[in-house]
Amino acid sequence: MEFNKRYGRALVPAFALAGATMLPRIASAEDAVSAEMFTVNNLWMMIAAALVFIMHLGFATLETGLTRAKNGTNILFKNTFIISAGILTYAICGFNLMYPGEFNLIGGVFGFAGFGVAADSAAQSVAYADGNYTYWTDFLFQAMFAATAATIVSGAVAERIKLGSFMVFSVIFVAIVYPIAGSWKWGAGFLDAMGFYDFAGSTLVHSVGGWGALAGAMILGPRLGKYSGGRIHPIPGSNMPMAAIGVFLLWLGWFGFNGGSVLNADANLVSLTLVTTCLAAAAGGMVACFVSWGVSGKPDLSMALNGILAGLVGITAGADQMAMMSAIAIGAIAGAIVVFSVIFFDRIKIDDPVGAISVHLTCGIWGTLAVGIFGAMASPTQLWHQFVGVVCYGVFAFGSACALFFAIKATMGLRVSEDEEIEGLDLGEHGMHCYDFTPAGGGVLDQVTGGGKPVPVATTSLASERS
Amino acid sequence: MEFNKRYGRALVPAFALAGATMLPRIASAEDAVSAEMFTVNNLWMMIAAALVFIMHLGFATLETGLTRAKNGTNILFKNTFIISAGILTYAICGFNLMYPGEFNLIGGVFGFAGFGVAADSAAQSVAYADGNYTYWTDFLFQAMFAATAATIVSGAVAERIKLGSFMVFSVIFVAIVYPIAGSWKWGAGFLDAMGFYDFAGSTLVHSVGGWGALAGAMILGPRLGKYSGGRIHPIPGSNMPMAAIGVFLLWLGWFGFNGGSVLNADANLVSLTLVTTCLAAAAGGMVACFVSWGVSGKPDLSMALNGILAGLVGITAGADQMAMMSAIAIGAIAGAIVVFSVIFFDRIKIDDPVGAISVHLTCGIWGTLAVGIFGAMASPTQLWHQFVGVVCYGVFAFGSACALFFAIKATMGLRVSEDEEIEGLDLGEHGMHCYDFTPAGGGVLDQVTGGGKPVPVATTSLASERS
Amino acid sequence: MEFNKRYGRALVPAFALAGATMLPRIASAEDAVSAEMFTVNNLWMMIAAALVFIMHLGFATLETGLTRAKNGTNILFKNTFIISAGILTYAICGFNLMYPGEFNLIGGVFGFAGFGVAADSAAQSVAYADGNYTYWTDFLFQAMFAATAATIVSGAVAERIKLGSFMVFSVIFVAIVYPIAGSWKWGAGFLDAMGFYDFAGSTLVHSVGGWGALAGAMILGPRLGKYSGGRIHPIPGSNMPMAAIGVFLLWLGWFGFNGGSVLNADANLVSLTLVTTCLAAAAGGMVACFVSWGVSGKPDLSMALNGILAGLVGITAGADQMAMMSAIAIGAIAGAIVVFSVIFFDRIKIDDPVGAISVHLTCGIWGTLAVGIFGAMASPTQLWHQFVGVVCYGVFAFGSACALFFAIKATMGLRVSEDEEIEGLDLGEHGMHCYDFTPAGGGVLDQVTGGGKPVPVATTSLASERS
Repeated sequence: MEFNKRYGRALVPAFALAGATMLPRIASAEDAVSAEMFTVNNLWMMIAAALVFIMHLGFATLETGLTRAKNGTNILFKNTFIISAGILTYAICGFNLMYPGEFNLIGGVFGFAGFGVAADSAAQSVAYADGNYTYWTDFLFQAMFAATAATIVSGAVAERIKLGSFMVFSVIFVAIVYPIAGSWKWGAGFLDAMGFYDFAGSTLVHSVGGWGALAGAMILGPRLGKYSGGRIHPIPGSNMPMAAIGVFLLWLGWFGFNGGSVLNADANLVSLTLVTTCLAAAAGGMVACFVSWGVSGKPDLSMALNGILAGLVGITAGADQMAMMSAIAIGAIAGAIVVFSVIFFDRIKIDDPVGAISVHLTCGIWGTLAVGIFGAMASPTQLWHQFVGVVCYGVFAFGSACALFFAIKATMGLRVSEDEEIEGLDLGEHGMHCYDFTPAGGGVLDQVTGGGKPVPVATTSLASERS
Repeated sequence: MEFNKRYGRALVPAFALAGATMLPRIASAEDAVSAEMFTVNNLWMMIAAALVFIMHLGFATLETGLTRAKNGTNILFKNTFIISAGILTYAICGFNLMYPGEFNLIGGVFGFAGFGVAADSAAQSVAYADGNYTYWTDFLFQAMFAATAATIVSGAVAERIKLGSFMVFSVIFVAIVYPIAGSWKWGAGFLDAMGFYDFAGSTLVHSVGGWGALAGAMILGPRLGKYSGGRIHPIPGSNMPMAAIGVFLLWLGWFGFNGGSVLNADANLVSLTLVTTCLAAAAGGMVACFVSWGVSGKPDLSMALNGILAGLVGITAGADQMAMMSAIAIGAIAGAIVVFSVIFFDRIKIDDPVGAISVHLTCGIWGTLAVGIFGAMASPTQLWHQFVGVVCYGVFAFGSACALFFAIKATMGLRVSEDEEIEGLDLGEHGMHCYDFTPAGGGVLDQVTGGGKPVPVATTSLASERS
Repeated sequence: MEFNKRYGRALVPAFALAGATMLPRIASAEDAVSAEMFTVNNLWMMIAAALVFIMHLGFATLETGLTRAKNGTNILFKNTFIISAGILTYAICGFNLMYPGEFNLIGGVFGFAGFGVAADSAAQSVAYADGNYTYWTDFLFQAMFAATAATIVSGAVAERIKLGSFMVFSVIFVAIVYPIAGSWKWGAGFLDAMGFYDFAGSTLVHSVGGWGALAGAMILGPRLGKYSGGRIHPIPGSNMPMAAIGVFLLWLGWFGFNGGSVLNADANLVSLTLVTTCLAAAAGGMVACFVSWGVSGKPDLSMALNGILAGLVGITAGADQMAMMSAIAIGAIAGAIVVFSVIFFDRIKIDDPVGAISVHLTCGIWGTLAVGIFGAMASPTQLWHQFVGVVCYGVFAFGSACALFFAIKATMGLRVSEDEEIEGLDLGEHGMHCYDFTPAGGGVLDQVTGGGKPVPVATTSLASERS
C-alpha cells in the first residue's frame, strides 16, 4: 500500500518540449487507465483540493474564536494573507522545489508559474501521473497543502507577533522550508528511500508546522500576564461558535486531506481512509472531552474540539492502512495526549493561545510513530524508520524556524510593543475593530446624532482623509 | 423506483471467512458494473457522506444562533459530543443493529468496529452492494445519518437540560433506538415488507428525532419565564448570522442527505432528487416568510429559515419521484404548516427554543404522508401504508424517548437548577463564557492593568489551579 | 475552446411528446459518451451546483459582516429570500427565457415548473446535452447562477432600502432581466454570434449584477452621515469574522462557478480552470493588500478580502484559457483596480457599503476585456468584441435596473425613513435584533428577575400577543 507523491517533475523536460502541442483530450488506448477512470480520479483529486482549501477557513475561524476579540482582525488578516501567499509562492517555486527533477533554475524551480507551461501544454496529458490526475490538479492539491504548514504557526504566535514579521516568516517557510522538507519523502528523497512512511502528512505537514509553532512561541515569549505572579492565568477565547465552526470545517477538510492523499479515487482505499479518519476524530474528541473533564472538573468545549483535531492529526500518517479498532485507538490516544501536552506546555511557560503545538506537533509525532505500532506496516524496524523521520524533520524544521525567527528578530523585530499588545493588534496594526455591536453600530451616526464615539479607520473606504 | 438500504449485513458471514484475503482492487468482468461505474458511484456516496457530516455544523450553529448567548457553549458542546459519540456508537453496534443479518453478538452486532473486519477485508469488494459503494462507504454514510436523529433532540431541550443527562440520552438514542427503528424499513423489516416508503428519512430520521424532541420538551417543561403570567414571552435568538449559517449549511448538506439516498450516482435519479429538494426548500422558505408576515405583521427571519428546513424535511420522503410542481407544492405546504405548528406548540405551552418539533416532527409526518398524495406512488393504499408507518414510528420513538427521559429523570435528574438556568448553562456546566467582546477581551489583562474582572475557567489551559 | 451553454431548449418539443415515456437509465452504445462518462460528467455538474449554492451563504455573511449590527437581520433576510425566490422564479420562467427554443408561452416559457416535465420525463436522456449532464442538472446549475446577480445588488443598497421594494426589484431582476441578458450569449443569441466570449460570467453574472448595484446605489443615495460635512466618513463593518467566512466561502464556491462552467468533468480543462481561478484569487488578494496598505498606511482586511473577490471576478471570463502567468496578471491587476475603484466611487459620493460595484462591475468589465488581451483568444478583434459586449450589457442592465428602481420609487417608495435608518432596519422592518449578547440574553428573564428591558418581538414564536 506504499505510495509516493513522486510524479511532480519526472515529465517536466517533456513538457518543455511539448509546450506548443495541443493537449490530448481523450486518453488513448495504450494509457494505464480508461478515459473514464482518468476523469473520475482527477475529479476526486480536484474536490479533495477544494476540501483542503476550506481547511484554511477552518484555521482562520478556530484561531479567531480561541483568541481575544481585540486581535481578531489581525488573525483573520494573517490567514487571508497566508492562503494567498502560499498558493502564489508554491506556483513560483515551491511546487518544483518539492518535486525536483533535473535541477534547472529557469525551467525547473521557477518553471510552473514562470513560463514554459502554457494553458494548452501537454503537461496535462493522461500519462502525467498514470491516469490519476492532471498536472494542474497535482499543483492545486499540493499548493493547498503547502499553505497549511505556515497557518499552523499562526495560531501559536497569535496576539503578540508583528504582522510584517509574521508575513516574512510565513512566506519563507511555505516557499522554501516546507517544500524542501516535503521532498525528503513525497519528492522521493532519502527518507522515502529509507522506508519512512507518512501517508498524508502527520509529520510532513503537521509536525513541520508544529515545530515552527514551537520555535515561534519560544522566541516570542508568552502573552503579557499569562504567567504573571508565578501562576498560569488562562486567557479564554472570545467567540466559541467561531471555534466550533473552525473544527467542523477542519474535519470536513480532512476528508480531502487524507482521502485525497490516496492520489486517485480508488473506491476501497479512499473509503477506508475516510472511515479511519472519522473514527479517529470521533475517538479523539470523546477521550479529550472526558480526560479534560476528569482533570479540570468541567467539560471543556475547547478541549473536546482540540481532541477532534488531535485524532485527525494522529491518524493522518497511517489512515490508509488501519483496521477500525486501530483507528479508534490511535485517535483515542491522541485525544488523551493533547490534554496532557497542553498542560505540559503551560507548565513550562510556552504560551500557545490555540493549542497548536500540542495538536499538530505532539500528535503529529504520535501519529507518525503509530504507523510502526498499528496496522499493516507495524514492526520494530518500521517504528525505527518512523522515529528517524521524526528526528530528521524535527531538526530541520525547528532549526530552520528558529534561524528565521532569530534573523527577523534581529532585523525587523518580532514582537509588538506592550501598549499595542494591551490595546490589541487590531487597532495597533490595522486601525480597526474586529467587532462593533454597539446600538448605532459605527461611528458615523454617533456624530450625526450627537454621540462622541471616535470614528475608526475605514473598513470599505480608504479615502477618508483626502476627499 | 423503490429501493432499500438493505445491503448492510447480507454478506457479513462471507466477510468473516474472507477476513484474511486481500481485497480485489479492480472489479472483474462478471461484476454488475464496470470498475469505472463502481468508482464514480462510490465517489458520490463518499461526497454525500461529507455533505451529511456538515449538517452537524449546521445544527450546531442554528441552535447556537436561536438560543441565548449564555447557553451557547453548552449547545456547541452537545453538538460536538453527538457527532463524535454518534459515529463511535454506530461503529460499535448501531450499524449492525440497523442492517441485521444472522443475529450473532460477536461477529454480528459488535462486528464492525470490534474485530473480524480488517483494513484489507474483502468486505469492500465490488460485490458488496452491486457495485454502488464499498462496505466502508456504507458505514460512513449511514453513520452520518445516525447522529442526526439525536442532534434534532438537542435543540428542543436546549437551555435547561443537564449536560450529563442529555449525553446519556443521546448515546442510547443513537446507539439503539434509531438503529432499531431504521431497521423496520431500511433494514428490510416489516414496514418495508408492508409497502411503507421513506426515501431519505422524513420519518426514519426526522420524525424519529422529532418524537424524541417532543418527549424531551414535554418532560423538561418550558424555560423559566417563557409562559409566566399566562402569556407567551418570546425569547429571541442571540446571533442571527449563526442561525443563517446553520440553515444554509443544512440545505447544502441535504444535497448529500437526499442525493446520497439514491445510493449510487445515477445521473437522472440523483439530479432529479436534487432539483425536487431545492425547489421544496425554496418554496418552504417563501411560503413561511409570507405566512408568518401575515400572521405577525413583520417578516420574520427565523421563520423564513425554518420554512426552508420545513420544505427540506417535507420533500425528503419522496424526493426521488416528484414532478416539479409536486415538489413545489410539498415544500410550500410544509412552509405553511411549520408556522402554524410553532404557534400551536407555543399555545399548548410546549417550549421548543429552536422550533425543532415543528420542523422535524410535524413536517416529517407531512412529507411521509405526501408520498401517498403526490408523485409516482400516490394512491389511497399507499397513503394508508404511509399513515401506518407514521403511527408505528411515533409509538416506538415517542415511547422509547419518554421511557429514557423518565428513567434519567428518576436517577440523574434532568433539569438544571433555577439559579443555573438564570445564570446560564455555560457558566453552570462549563465554567466559561461563549462570547467575550469586552475591550480587553479576557480577564488576564484586566488584572495586569488593574481591572477587577474575575478570571473565567481556562479555555485552552486546564492547569490554572496547580502550577 | 469556445463553447455555449446552448442545450437548454433545443429538445423541449421532444420532451413534451415523450413526457409519458420512462427515462432511459443507461446510455446506449450510439451515445456520444459512455454511461460512465455521462455519470461522472453529471456528477461534477451537480457538485458544481452545490458549490455555487454555497456562494449565497458567502454573500450573506460577507454583507452582514461589512455592515452595521443594527441592519444584520435585514441583510440576512434579503439573502435568504433571494436564493429562495431566485430558484423558484428560474423554475417558473427564467430557465426557459434564458435558453429559448420555439417561443411558446405554455410549454415554452412556463414549461419547466408548470407542466409537461414529469419526474420520469425523457428530458433527462443522455442525449440531452451530449452526455454532459441531465436536464435536471442543467436547471439546477443555471438556477444557482441566476440568483447571484440579484444578490450582488443587495450589498450595494444595504442599510437603507425598504425590504418590500428590494424584494420586488430582485424578483423581477432575477426572473426577467438576468435571463434575457444571459440569452444573448449563453442562449446562443446575437453576442454569441458576433464572437463575444464570457466563459463563466464576468459580464453575464457579475457585471449585470454590478450595473444593478450601481443603479440602486445612485438612486437611493448614500447612507445618512456617510458624506456629511463634505467629508467621507467611513462606516466600518461590525463583524469581520463573518466577512472572512463570506470571502472564503465565495472562493470555494468559485470552484463550482468557474469549474462547472466547463459543463463537463473534462480533466484537463476543469483542472486548468481551477488553477487559473485560484492563482487569480491569490494574486488579487496579495496586490489589494499591498496597494491598500500603501494608500492608507495600514493593512486593510476588508481590502484584502475584496481583492480576492476582485481576482475571482476578473479571471471568470477567461478562466478556461489562461496560462499561469496570465492568470496571475489578470488577478493582480484586478486587485489593484478594486482599491482605486472603491476610492473613486467614494469620491463621487456613490455609497456602496460592501464594495459590490467595484468588485463585480469594475472587475467584471476588466475580466471581460482581459480575454482580448491575454490567453488563447487575445487579438484586437476579440478585444473589440469584448468591448461591444460590455457596452451592450451595460446599456441593458443599467437601463433596466434604473427603470425598475424609478418605477418602484414612484409607487412603493425605495428608502426607509431617517428614523428607521438611524434606529436600524432590524427593528424597523423586522422588529428584532441581530445580536443579543447581554448577560441575561433575552428579555424574558429580565422580567422574571426584575430587570426592565423591553421584550423584543418573538424570534421563534409568533403568537405572543394572542395567547
